[in-house]
Amino acid sequence: MGSSCFISGVDASAFSLANLPYGVFSAPHQPPRPCVRVGEAVLDLCSLERRGLLPSSAALPLFDTPTLNTFMSAGPQVWAGVRQQLQQLLAVETPTLRDAPDVQAQVLHPLSDVTLHLPVRIGNYTDFYASRQHATNVGTLFRGPNNALPPNWLHLPIGYHGRASSVVVSGTPIRRPSGQMRPAGAEAPVFGPSQELDLEVELGAVIGTGNALGAPIPVDEAPAHIFGYVLVNDWSARDIQRWEYKPLGPFLGKSFATTISPWIVPAAALEPFRVALDPQMPAPLPYLNQGERLGIDIDLAVDLMAENGTAMSIIETNAQYLYWTFPQMVAHHTVNGCNLQPGDLLASGTISGPAPHSFGSLLERTTGGARALMLSDGSTRTFLADGDTIVLRGEARRGDLRIGFGEARGTVQPAQ
Amino acid sequence: MGSSCFISGVDASAFSLANLPYGVFSAPHQPPRPCVRVGEAVLDLCSLERRGLLPSSAALPLFDTPTLNTFMSAGPQVWAGVRQQLQQLLAVETPTLRDAPDVQAQVLHPLSDVTLHLPVRIGNYTDFYASRQHATNVGTLFRGPNNALPPNWLHLPIGYHGRASSVVVSGTPIRRPSGQMRPAGAEAPVFGPSQELDLEVELGAVIGTGNALGAPIPVDEAPAHIFGYVLVNDWSARDIQRWEYKPLGPFLGKSFATTISPWIVPAAALEPFRVALDPQMPAPLPYLNQGERLGIDIDLAVDLMAENGTAMSIIETNAQYLYWTFPQMVAHHTVNGCNLQPGDLLASGTISGPAPHSFGSLLERTTGGARALMLSDGSTRTFLADGDTIVLRGEARRGDLRIGFGEARGTVQPAQ
Repeated sequence: MGSSCFISGVDASAFSLANLPYGVFSAPHQPPRPCVRVGEAVLDLCSLERRGLLPSSAALPLFDTPTLNTFMSAGPQVWAGVRQQLQQLLAVETPTLRDAPDVQAQVLHPLSDVTLHLPVRIGNYTDFYASRQHATNVGTLFRGPNNALPPNWLHLPIGYHGRASSVVVSGTPIRRPSGQMRPAGAEAPVFGPSQELDLEVELGAVIGTGNALGAPIPVDEAPAHIFGYVLVNDWSARDIQRWEYKPLGPFLGKSFATTISPWIVPAAALEPFRVALDPQMPAPLPYLNQGERLGIDIDLAVDLMAENGTAMSIIETNAQYLYWTFPQMVAHHTVNGCNLQPGDLLASGTISGPAPHSFGSLLERTTGGARALMLSDGSTRTFLADGDTIVLRGEARRGDLRIGFGEARGTVQPAQ
Repeated sequence: MGSSCFISGVDASAFSLANLPYGVFSAPHQPPRPCVRVGEAVLDLCSLERRGLLPSSAALPLFDTPTLNTFMSAGPQVWAGVRQQLQQLLAVETPTLRDAPDVQAQVLHPLSDVTLHLPVRIGNYTDFYASRQHATNVGTLFRGPNNALPPNWLHLPIGYHGRASSVVVSGTPIRRPSGQMRPAGAEAPVFGPSQELDLEVELGAVIGTGNALGAPIPVDEAPAHIFGYVLVNDWSARDIQRWEYKPLGPFLGKSFATTISPWIVPAAALEPFRVALDPQMPAPLPYLNQGERLGIDIDLAVDLMAENGTAMSIIETNAQYLYWTFPQMVAHHTVNGCNLQPGDLLASGTISGPAPHSFGSLLERTTGGARALMLSDGSTRTFLADGDTIVLRGEARRGDLRIGFGEARGTVQPAQ
């Protein structure tokens, strides 16, 4: 269950020593540097490293840099060593920091005093389509219930390349995109602000160590390549997407912004939340066949807050609803020899569960815009309005143990 | 027409002072650094800069780095200043280098003595579908002649995100990818090496200066954001692609490798080769409407060399066959607020002209694999065989003026 922390309140929080998610912060007038979150504070890893308080590494400094990429590329043994050392340093039995208030003042900062940044330099961002309920919902809307799942869907985790440059950290404002769309029944397209701005609740795996071009990662080795997990909101302009996506897939309907949470929860912290998944029917080809398929039990929730303050829970779902696992996504992604690199983001695609409240997008929640959601002030939403704030939250829970993801938040600004 | 160079043979070559394409080279036991190509030599820009022989810049060193990204991000005025200075330094009238054989020995290296590297760190790679003949050819094969062009094709330059990590420089071996495919008539997919490995001849624009997230680049300002152009071979596994691409677009059928030429030809060197294009019908929406649409007259050729040495010219086409211009691609790509960054690669998609020999892929040259090409030794090809070498070449010509792109070369290795 992890040790007790010498900082009061930490043990009962979702950011106890059992979690210790990684991020990048800056104190006022300081450059960004890596940290872990401990309760309502951040612990400066660059400062700890300079003081010799982290395991010495044969390699160059791991944390004297504005992203986590160097650390992530150092591999699972280094991750495990640093995590163990941090848990020990913060434990109530360890005097090193506990009895050194002057050092604490240098290396611990209240969360409210710092700015959080994108934790990784994302070289490539891939978005999958791994929730069966989501694919069924969307397919039913577009092609009817009898042709909902494409013929390939049960055989491979469908994915496509997303836009890495527009992945932003929680809190970044989201400008409503303009673009081409073709109104229903019209012959020619028109240009203007999207009228169907949507969100998608997803989980993302952040790649720690990659693979060489031409050398696939076997599915059984894939877990060791995953550094951790983040929340992902894959903002989507449905009207732009609908007009552009045939035959080469989503492009401008997605590439204007993707929000991730500032915290990368280590894969190790989620081990207690592994759950066995049902066997896949049909059985996938051998390169996708895992002996025991494990999902992750993480509650995911989405709140919508209108500009006037009216708030509403619009989605509650869970990461275990994914049909394809992240190791299967990694194995599929690399089976043709494609090289993954430290910092690559592999997102799950929208996660939808069986009940309507667990559908992970407004497209699904409103049956393609046909059934509006009503807020407590009587206003309605099919898609997002200017001024709306969307907050994704994630937390894994078992007994007293809580592993928090924090939030992925964005407020819609009017089109330019 | 540019000045004469003090190095003999340069003026008559495709790498005269009117060209001066940028690349990254390494001499034996030296780290990679930027250069320009002059005839059959490379000129070391880092060394020139250290000697104070380049225009002084307020910014940090531009060339003390293993890629061209820093220089590209400095903007068009800096590019123009460096280009002018290089043309002057190399001119027969200028004694600085001409009369200093010891300096020449330090800064000029025979091409045969150096290794060429990927010239840029490519943050994001986007592939378009901008040739009307190509889209018509492929559409006819897949959907018949009456539905060849998708409804959106004439209204926007269709594009999709490619895989940036597997873009490699000319000469890198290409491992035949394995993956899922569904044989014709079969119910279930099989796994194995691709049997339909293809090439695509494309031109790529390399972005110099980008745009902020949320701030589109107007079509008239787009040319100033393009640093230069490279040859692109978008290797494609048609059987993998056919099974995977609906509904989210090409993924593993493309992401195993993309080869680019080592030389980035500056946009300035191609100004004499601008040609007026026919007006577009229907007229595009205003954000894509250029006053005068200019294409680029660049001859592109593809040779296939079998392992036994038999060689064949399989494609001769021209960049002016593109229906959508690169400025239109830039304007479309950013109209939703998506941010381009220095070093981003925007490829045209396969370039096909009106005659069969100008079709830019084997898929088209062999009518979907139905009509094999015959080599001089009597062997045939529908798609590529192990050991085949594909060489893309590009050159713009007008009178005595030649602007060479060099080549994008790759040899197919057997699947692992």
